[in-house]
Amino acid sequence: MIAQLDREQIDDLLRAQVVGRVGCHADGLTYVVPVIYAYDGEAFYVYTVEGQKVRMMRANPRVCFEVDEYEAGSWRSAIVQGRYEELDGAEAERALARLAERFASRAGGRRPRAEGTPVAFRIVIDEITGRAVRRESPT
Amino acid sequence: MIAQLDREQIDDLLRAQVVGRVGCHADGLTYVVPVIYAYDGEAFYVYTVEGQKVRMMRANPRVCFEVDEYEAGSWRSAIVQGRYEELDGAEAERALARLAERFASRAGGRRPRAEGTPVAFRIVIDEITGRAVRRESPT
Repeated sequence: MIAQLDREQIDDLLRAQVVGRVGCHADGLTYVVPVIYAYDGEAFYVYTVEGQKVRMMRANPRVCFEVDEYEAGSWRSAIVQGRYEELDGAEAERALARLAERFASRAGGRRPRAEGTPVAFRIVIDEITGRAVRRESPT
Repeated sequence: MIAQLDREQIDDLLRAQVVGRVGCHADGLTYVVPVIYAYDGEAFYVYTVEGQKVRMMRANPRVCFEVDEYEAGSWRSAIVQGRYEELDGAEAERALARLAERFASRAGGRRPRAEGTPVAFRIVIDEITGRAVRRESPT
Protein backbone atom coordinates (compact mmCIF):
# COMPACT_ATOMS: atom_id res chain seq x y z
CA MET A 1 0.00 0.00 0.00
CA ILE A 2 1.43 3.35 -1.08
CA ALA A 3 0.07 6.58 0.39
CA GLN A 4 1.03 10.19 -0.23
CA LEU A 5 1.95 12.02 2.95
CA ASP A 6 0.41 15.42 3.57
CA ARG A 7 2.62 18.30 4.63
CA GLU A 8 2.01 17.75 8.33
CA GLN A 9 3.03 14.09 8.04
CA ILE A 10 6.08 15.09 6.00
CA ASP A 11 7.05 17.64 8.65
CA ASP A 12 6.72 14.98 11.36
CA LEU A 13 9.19 12.81 9.46
CA LEU A 14 11.60 15.69 8.81
CA ARG A 15 11.59 16.71 12.48
CA ALA A 16 12.01 13.13 13.70
CA GLN A 17 15.01 12.27 11.53
CA VAL A 18 18.49 13.75 11.76
CA VAL A 19 20.21 12.43 8.64
CA GLY A 20 19.29 13.48 5.13
CA ARG A 21 21.00 13.12 1.77
CA VAL A 22 21.87 15.94 -0.55
CA GLY A 23 21.79 15.11 -4.25
CA CYS A 24 23.67 17.52 -6.47
CA HIS A 25 24.83 17.56 -10.06
CA ALA A 26 27.59 19.42 -11.88
CA ASP A 27 29.74 18.75 -14.94
CA GLY A 28 27.88 15.54 -15.77
CA LEU A 29 28.38 14.01 -12.32
CA THR A 30 25.57 13.23 -9.87
CA TYR A 31 26.62 13.02 -6.24
CA VAL A 32 24.62 11.93 -3.19
CA VAL A 33 26.04 12.52 0.26
CA PRO A 34 24.61 12.16 3.77
CA VAL A 35 24.41 15.18 6.07
CA ILE A 36 23.09 15.94 9.54
CA TYR A 37 20.49 18.66 9.40
CA ALA A 38 18.19 20.91 11.38
CA TYR A 39 14.80 21.80 9.91
CA ASP A 40 12.66 24.87 10.53
CA GLY A 41 9.72 24.18 8.23
CA GLU A 42 11.15 26.11 5.28
CA ALA A 43 14.73 24.98 4.93
CA PHE A 44 17.33 22.43 6.01
CA TYR A 45 20.39 23.78 7.81
CA VAL A 46 23.74 22.04 7.50
CA TYR A 47 27.20 22.76 8.83
CA THR A 48 30.01 21.09 6.96
CA VAL A 49 33.47 21.63 5.56
CA GLU A 50 34.50 22.60 2.06
CA GLY A 51 34.74 19.66 -0.25
CA GLN A 52 33.12 18.02 -3.25
CA LYS A 53 29.47 18.65 -2.33
CA VAL A 54 30.04 22.33 -1.58
CA ARG A 55 31.97 22.83 -4.83
CA MET A 56 29.22 21.11 -6.79
CA MET A 57 26.36 23.01 -5.11
CA ARG A 58 28.17 26.32 -5.71
CA ALA A 59 28.38 25.36 -9.40
CA ASN A 60 24.73 24.24 -9.55
CA PRO A 61 22.50 25.28 -6.64
CA ARG A 62 19.49 23.25 -7.81
CA VAL A 63 19.63 20.27 -5.48
CA CYS A 64 17.54 17.42 -4.13
CA PHE A 65 17.26 16.61 -0.43
CA GLU A 66 16.01 13.23 0.75
CA VAL A 67 15.00 11.84 4.15
CA ASP A 68 13.72 8.34 4.79
CA GLU A 69 12.80 5.97 7.56
CA TYR A 70 12.64 2.24 7.02
CA GLU A 71 11.40 -0.11 9.67
CA ALA A 72 10.17 -3.67 9.49
CA GLY A 73 9.40 -3.43 5.80
CA SER A 74 7.56 -0.11 5.96
CA TRP A 75 8.81 3.22 4.64
CA ARG A 76 8.26 6.86 5.06
CA SER A 77 10.23 9.15 2.81
CA ALA A 78 10.34 12.79 1.79
CA ILE A 79 11.94 14.17 -1.34
CA VAL A 80 12.61 17.86 -1.72
CA GLN A 81 13.55 19.95 -4.71
CA GLY A 82 15.39 22.96 -3.39
CA ARG A 83 18.04 25.62 -3.69
CA TYR A 84 21.46 25.72 -2.08
CA GLU A 85 22.17 28.94 -0.21
CA GLU A 86 25.47 29.48 1.51
CA LEU A 87 25.31 31.31 4.82
CA ASP A 88 27.79 33.59 6.47
CA GLY A 89 28.04 35.99 9.35
CA ALA A 90 24.98 36.12 11.57
CA GLU A 91 23.09 33.66 9.35
CA ALA A 92 25.83 31.05 9.68
CA GLU A 93 25.81 31.55 13.45
CA ARG A 94 22.06 31.04 13.53
CA ALA A 95 22.39 27.84 11.52
CA LEU A 96 25.01 26.55 13.92
CA ALA A 97 22.79 27.45 16.88
CA ARG A 98 19.86 25.57 15.34
CA LEU A 99 22.03 22.49 14.89
CA ALA A 100 23.47 22.74 18.39
CA GLU A 101 19.96 23.02 19.81
CA ARG A 102 18.75 20.10 17.70
CA PHE A 103 21.54 17.83 18.78
CA ALA A 104 21.80 18.95 22.37
CA SER A 105 18.27 17.63 22.81
CA ARG A 106 19.31 14.14 21.77
CA ALA A 107 21.19 11.53 23.74
CA GLY A 108 24.82 11.75 22.75
CA GLY A 109 24.28 15.21 21.30
CA ARG A 110 27.45 16.79 20.01
CA ARG A 111 28.44 20.05 18.50
CA PRO A 112 29.52 19.66 14.88
CA ARG A 113 33.29 19.66 14.60
CA ALA A 114 34.95 21.03 11.51
CA GLU A 115 38.01 19.50 9.89
CA GLY A 116 38.79 21.90 7.08
CA THR A 117 37.22 25.20 6.06
CA PRO A 118 33.77 25.34 7.65
CA VAL A 119 30.74 26.08 5.48
CA ALA A 120 27.20 26.69 6.69
CA PHE A 121 24.38 26.38 4.19
CA ARG A 122 20.69 25.89 3.92
CA ILE A 123 18.57 24.16 1.34
CA VAL A 124 15.41 26.16 0.78
CA ILE A 125 12.38 24.07 -0.15
CA ASP A 126 10.81 24.72 -3.55
CA GLU A 127 8.76 21.57 -3.70
CA ILE A 128 8.29 18.65 -1.35
CA THR A 129 6.61 15.28 -1.65
CA GLY A 130 6.32 12.43 0.79
CA ARG A 131 5.07 8.91 0.71
CA ALA A 132 4.51 5.98 2.96
CA VAL A 133 4.76 2.40 1.79
CA ARG A 134 3.37 -0.26 4.07
CA ARG A 135 4.20 -3.78 3.00
CA GLU A 136 1.87 -6.64 3.53
CA SER A 137 2.34 -8.83 6.55
CA PRO A 138 4.87 -11.62 6.12
CA THR A 139 3.30 -14.72 4.65
CA MET B 1 38.18 11.91 13.00
CA ILE B 2 37.57 11.06 9.36
CA ALA B 3 38.94 7.83 7.92
CA GLN B 4 38.72 6.40 4.43
CA LEU B 5 37.24 2.90 4.38
CA ASP B 6 39.01 0.23 2.39
CA ARG B 7 37.06 -1.99 0.03
CA GLU B 8 36.55 -4.73 2.59
CA GLN B 9 35.13 -2.24 5.11
CA ILE B 10 32.93 -0.74 2.40
CA ASP B 11 31.64 -4.20 1.49
CA ASP B 12 30.85 -4.89 5.15
CA LEU B 13 28.70 -1.77 5.22
CA LEU B 14 27.00 -2.57 1.91
CA ARG B 15 26.15 -6.12 3.02
CA ALA B 16 24.91 -4.97 6.44
CA GLN B 17 22.52 -2.31 5.18
CA VAL B 18 19.34 -2.84 3.17
CA VAL B 19 18.37 0.68 2.13
CA GLY B 20 20.36 2.77 -0.33
CA ARG B 21 19.57 5.91 -2.28
CA VAL B 22 19.78 6.29 -6.00
CA GLY B 23 20.73 9.73 -7.27
CA CYS B 24 19.89 10.41 -10.89
CA HIS B 25 19.76 13.44 -13.13
CA ALA B 26 17.89 14.24 -16.33
CA ASP B 27 16.57 17.40 -17.97
CA GLY B 28 18.10 19.65 -15.34
CA LEU B 29 16.48 17.81 -12.42
CA THR B 30 18.38 15.88 -9.75
CA TYR B 31 16.38 13.24 -7.93
CA VAL B 32 17.31 11.12 -4.91
CA VAL B 33 15.11 8.20 -3.95
CA PRO B 34 15.47 5.37 -1.43
CA VAL B 35 15.47 1.75 -2.59
CA ILE B 36 15.87 -1.65 -1.01
CA TYR B 37 18.79 -3.49 -2.57
CA ALA B 38 20.76 -6.70 -2.70
CA TYR B 39 24.52 -6.50 -3.28
CA ASP B 40 26.83 -9.06 -4.86
CA GLY B 41 30.15 -7.23 -4.71
CA GLU B 42 29.85 -5.77 -8.21
CA ALA B 43 26.38 -4.33 -8.47
CA PHE B 44 23.25 -3.37 -6.54
CA TYR B 45 20.03 -5.16 -7.50
CA VAL B 46 16.69 -3.43 -7.18
CA TYR B 47 13.14 -4.42 -7.99
CA THR B 48 10.72 -1.55 -8.39
CA VAL B 49 7.88 -0.24 -10.49
CA GLU B 50 7.99 2.16 -13.39
CA GLY B 51 7.98 5.75 -12.30
CA GLN B 52 10.08 8.87 -12.13
CA LYS B 53 13.40 7.26 -11.17
CA VAL B 54 13.18 4.62 -13.90
CA ARG B 55 12.29 7.23 -16.53
CA MET B 56 15.21 9.40 -15.44
CA MET B 57 17.74 6.53 -15.34
CA ARG B 58 16.65 5.38 -18.78
CA ALA B 59 17.31 8.94 -20.01
CA ASN B 60 20.66 9.19 -18.21
CA PRO B 61 22.16 5.93 -16.90
CA ARG B 62 25.06 7.60 -15.08
CA VAL B 63 23.86 7.46 -11.48
CA CYS B 64 25.08 7.70 -7.93
CA PHE B 65 24.24 5.15 -5.24
CA GLU B 66 24.62 5.97 -1.57
CA VAL B 67 24.47 3.90 1.63
CA ASP B 68 25.00 5.21 5.12
CA GLU B 69 24.79 4.20 8.74
CA TYR B 70 24.56 6.77 11.50
CA GLU B 71 24.70 5.80 15.12
CA ALA B 72 25.36 7.84 18.24
CA GLY B 73 27.16 10.56 16.32
CA SER B 74 29.34 8.25 14.22
CA TRP B 75 29.00 7.59 10.51
CA ARG B 76 29.92 5.06 7.94
CA SER B 77 28.99 5.83 4.37
CA ALA B 78 29.68 4.57 0.88
CA ILE B 79 29.19 6.54 -2.31
CA VAL B 80 29.18 4.81 -5.67
CA GLN B 81 29.39 6.16 -9.18
CA GLY B 82 27.72 3.63 -11.41
CA ARG B 83 25.65 2.71 -14.42
CA TYR B 84 21.97 1.84 -14.56
CA GLU B 85 21.26 -1.40 -16.37
CA GLU B 86 17.72 -2.63 -16.80
CA LEU B 87 17.24 -6.36 -16.46
CA ASP B 88 14.78 -8.66 -18.11
CA GLY B 89 14.06 -12.32 -18.60
CA ALA B 90 16.41 -14.61 -16.68
CA GLU B 91 18.44 -11.69 -15.37
CA ALA B 92 15.38 -10.06 -13.84
CA GLU B 93 14.44 -13.40 -12.26
CA ARG B 94 17.94 -13.70 -10.79
CA ALA B 95 17.71 -10.18 -9.35
CA LEU B 96 14.38 -11.01 -7.76
CA ALA B 97 15.82 -14.22 -6.32
CA ARG B 98 18.76 -12.31 -4.83
CA LEU B 99 16.38 -9.87 -3.18
CA ALA B 100 14.09 -12.62 -1.92
CA GLU B 101 17.10 -14.44 -0.44
CA ARG B 102 18.41 -11.22 1.13
CA PHE B 103 15.12 -10.37 2.77
CA ALA B 104 14.06 -13.86 3.70
CA SER B 105 17.12 -13.95 5.93
CA ARG B 106 15.94 -10.94 7.93
CA ALA B 107 13.27 -10.73 10.59
CA GLY B 108 10.09 -9.54 8.94
CA GLY B 109 11.50 -10.40 5.52
CA ARG B 110 9.03 -9.89 2.72
CA ARG B 111 8.97 -10.43 -0.97
CA PRO B 112 8.86 -7.15 -2.87
CA ARG B 113 5.36 -6.39 -4.06
CA ALA B 114 4.81 -4.46 -7.24
CA GLU B 115 2.09 -1.85 -7.71
CA GLY B 116 2.47 -0.85 -11.33
CA THR B 117 4.68 -2.16 -14.11
CA PRO B 118 7.56 -4.02 -12.44
CA VAL B 119 11.14 -3.13 -13.38
CA ALA B 120 14.27 -4.95 -12.27
CA PHE B 121 17.58 -3.16 -12.60
CA ARG B 122 21.11 -3.18 -11.35
CA ILE B 123 23.58 -0.41 -10.74
CA VAL B 124 27.02 -1.58 -11.79
CA ILE B 125 29.85 -0.04 -9.78
CA ASP B 126 32.37 2.09 -11.67
CA GLU B 127 33.92 3.74 -8.65
CA ILE B 128 33.32 3.44 -4.95
CA THR B 129 34.51 5.40 -1.93
CA GLY B 130 33.73 5.01 1.73
CA ARG B 131 34.43 6.94 4.85
CA ALA B 132 33.93 6.73 8.56
CA VAL B 133 33.49 9.77 10.75
CA ARG B 134 33.81 9.28 14.45
CA ARG B 135 32.83 12.28 16.52
CA GLU B 136 34.53 13.19 19.73
CA SER B 137 32.96 12.04 22.98
CA PRO B 138 30.27 14.33 24.31
CA THR B 139 31.69 17.04 26.53
